[in-house]
Amino acid sequence: MLNRDYNDPACSIAGTLGLIGERWTLVILREVFLGRRRFSEMQRTTGVARNILSSRLDRLVDEGILERRPYSEHPERHEYLLTHKGLDLWPVLVDLLHWGDKHLDREGEPPLKLIHKDCGGEIDDRRICESCGKHLGPRDARAVYSGDPVAAATA
Amino acid sequence: MLNRDYNDPACSIAGTLGLIGERWTLVILREVFLGRRRFSEMQRTTGVARNILSSRLDRLVDEGILERRPYSEHPERHEYLLTHKGLDLWPVLVDLLHWGDKHLDREGEPPLKLIHKDCGGEIDDRRICESCGKHLGPRDARAVYSGDPVAAATA
Repeated sequence: MLNRDYNDPACSIAGTLGLIGERWTLVILREVFLGRRRFSEMQRTTGVARNILSSRLDRLVDEGILERRPYSEHPERHEYLLTHKGLDLWPVLVDLLHWGDKHLDREGEPPLKLIHKDCGGEIDDRRICESCGKHLGPRDARAVYSGDPVAAATA
Repeated sequence: MLNRDYNDPACSIAGTLGLIGERWTLVILREVFLGRRRFSEMQRTTGVARNILSSRLDRLVDEGILERRPYSEHPERHEYLLTHKGLDLWPVLVDLLHWGDKHLDREGEPPLKLIHKDCGGEIDDRRICESCGKHLGPRDARAVYSGDPVAAATA
């Protein structure tokens, strides 16, 4: 556990990183926010090693950030859903997305945009709809992939 | 470099994590935001190993997130300042702080609060002042430590 390494357990930043700051954890949470809830889907789209994916998912379930739910009995298979605690991590992912869109050295349009479901407006860096001004939560947004506005994944 | 491990270089979230997602990096950036700009200060307050601190700082300078500036010639010593690119990471740290304040299992007041310098209002999770409604940036905020409202560090 990462937080054992940090010197200041009283700091909320270090404490949060102790739960979600391990390699791959935020990429895995991104997958769940994008609607890819099953082990095999996440493994395929991220390329993460199966043992790491498995250990990260276990930890996120233990910490109450994800909830494991069966979707098949034979064979036994589970999918992973965000709890309220997990949904509250949405701002972190939105910030990482916006920072990367602005600062990564890359050509062309950002590969993924977040759109307000109700009005189609873009979401700004305070998670406010640029079009209608509404303060948005994860359930209000959908992801639109560059060049393919129809293939939108929903949180 | 972490981003070599991620399968989707086109994703801004993975790309950003490739730059700042290594262990300790965000804790080190927290230090700089709190005004602890010197190697020895950061090393003392975080307890990070010197070789790791050194390698993380080098990387952040290489990526244009921090700027290295000499403050002593004999012996040669440097301090680290946030560039514009670095200052743009403030929202990530504010989110991690707010999430930890809300969800970490801890007693009592949050150890650190962010206050709007001008009016003393608290900063909400969209970085808006709860008192005056202003949209705040890192230069508008100061940190107040629990139980010691006078000992405030400034970004």
